[in-house]
Amino acid sequence: MLVSGRRRLLTALLQAQKWPIQPSRDMRLVQFQAPHLVGPHLGLETGNGGGVINLNAFDPTLPKTMIQFLEQGEVTLSVARRALAAQLPVLPRSEVTFLAPVTRPDKVVCVGMNYVDHCKEQNVPVPKEPIIFSKFASSIVGPYDEVVLPPESQEVDWEVELAVVIGKKGKHIKATDAMAHVAGFTVAHDVSARDWLTRRNGKQWLLGKTFDTFCPLGPALVTKDSVADPHNLKICCRVNGEVVQSSNTKQMVFKTEELIAWVSQFVTFYPGDVILTGTPPGVGVFRKPPVFLKVG
Amino acid sequence: MLVSGRRRLLTALLQAQKWPIQPSRDMRLVQFQAPHLVGPHLGLETGNGGGVINLNAFDPTLPKTMIQFLEQGEVTLSVARRALAAQLPVLPRSEVTFLAPVTRPDKVVCVGMNYVDHCKEQNVPVPKEPIIFSKFASSIVGPYDEVVLPPESQEVDWEVELAVVIGKKGKHIKATDAMAHVAGFTVAHDVSARDWLTRRNGKQWLLGKTFDTFCPLGPALVTKDSVADPHNLKICCRVNGEVVQSSNTKQMVFKTEELIAWVSQFVTFYPGDVILTGTPPGVGVFRKPPVFLKVG
Repeated sequence: MLVSGRRRLLTALLQAQKWPIQPSRDMRLVQFQAPHLVGPHLGLETGNGGGVINLNAFDPTLPKTMIQFLEQGEVTLSVARRALAAQLPVLPRSEVTFLAPVTRPDKVVCVGMNYVDHCKEQNVPVPKEPIIFSKFASSIVGPYDEVVLPPESQEVDWEVELAVVIGKKGKHIKATDAMAHVAGFTVAHDVSARDWLTRRNGKQWLLGKTFDTFCPLGPALVTKDSVADPHNLKICCRVNGEVVQSSNTKQMVFKTEELIAWVSQFVTFYPGDVILTGTPPGVGVFRKPPVFLKVG
Repeated sequence: MLVSGRRRLLTALLQAQKWPIQPSRDMRLVQFQAPHLVGPHLGLETGNGGGVINLNAFDPTLPKTMIQFLEQGEVTLSVARRALAAQLPVLPRSEVTFLAPVTRPDKVVCVGMNYVDHCKEQNVPVPKEPIIFSKFASSIVGPYDEVVLPPESQEVDWEVELAVVIGKKGKHIKATDAMAHVAGFTVAHDVSARDWLTRRNGKQWLLGKTFDTFCPLGPALVTKDSVADPHNLKICCRVNGEVVQSSNTKQMVFKTEELIAWVSQFVTFYPGDVILTGTPPGVGVFRKPPVFLKVG
């Protein structure tokens, strides 16, 4: 029986994130804290696993939260580009605490059964329309924070996902215009209490998806110009070092553009909104026998 | 056939709200705009249907949004109490635009089938546990704003509800402590696209509930000390002048305290979070034949 640790599960996110990232000059925006700084700051992660450049020190007029940064669009992005090109001091990784790259967004939109191979795993037909549900923003935690296993559930499962972060407000966005509304991508974990999804709450998925800490994000928001093709990325999840999910985002049924077009029929997107684009196969519930996360 | 106008539907909210409100010295907090003021301001509605006292003019150190006001708790509430006791200039109602009393909260929590009489109307058993779903905060509009009927739905229905506004952060709140976390109450309209609830989106209710403009709120957040008993309030909804819903909040299956205790098992509540506590009978979909809202 697999015994899944909280912290070790979360390091798996980083492994998953290693794939989308190109080596050096990619823009990897982060929110972080450090002992000598008051409150959250904006920074640039210097490559995957590298230290952090303090953007607020580089330009004290920059906002200190990602949502405010994204709201200012090209103005703030160009400052970050200048910082990336300059030779700036780098805070060692050991001295910073990474927060989620986006905190308190207006929406966390989630997509169900959006991988062809995940549908096969469940033996269900591929959906003809996206299936949309949500988490509350209060479920977001940093990439290395603990996922708290609630006593209310005995069936907490893993779901690594590619997350899209919106950069520009919009409604009724056409698929052909959708990428203009994307700021970039990050890695999300759609932690799920299976018992609450399938047998409780009138089968409305919200509660089983939105326990506090059930949405680890990050560490970096990788800007879209740094990702050659968001729909050809390896995506994997490790639990206690073992690869449990391994697929490619080309297996997504509805791609980023279609998801934005679909959801924006209903709602206005705001900068900082997050879309969790669905999980590949390998989740615990469909294993024989099923496997769930445990404390330890 | 009933032809339901958008603006006339919304005036129905005010009718519903007339009931909970005592005549004069109740604290009725509002967010409003006026032509001579820049941006949203906080105010006190001088009785139901009365003019507005500008709280930000009374004390320029007060925040200008309700969420920031609530976050400061007793400090800001005591300022509002002083303003209520003073003889202050009142902006005529005709000169102000009422916004929703809370905008961009972390959560809009909704409760399904939470009126005994509404369950009877549907011929379904009274739920043994609350059924929780949500709207995105982006669906919130002011009490007199238009509800936009989306072309994507042919079955938009009305649902008047008592809404609870959280005043104090908390997790795992006991029912006996719950009222300490409540700032007050307002009236909500849980506008619902029935076709999307019952036949689309894998029966997840989110999309049918969260179209832009599907959550009119307000105008006033009536503080809890101004409401003698939130579970003995007449609640009604008029469409084009005709009473379509008329009940009493004592019909609620799970009362405010139980709902806060239940939901806070899963999530942390923050100041400004809104709970829509469910709708009484009389919605259009269970009429014979069913009746839905139309433009005009």
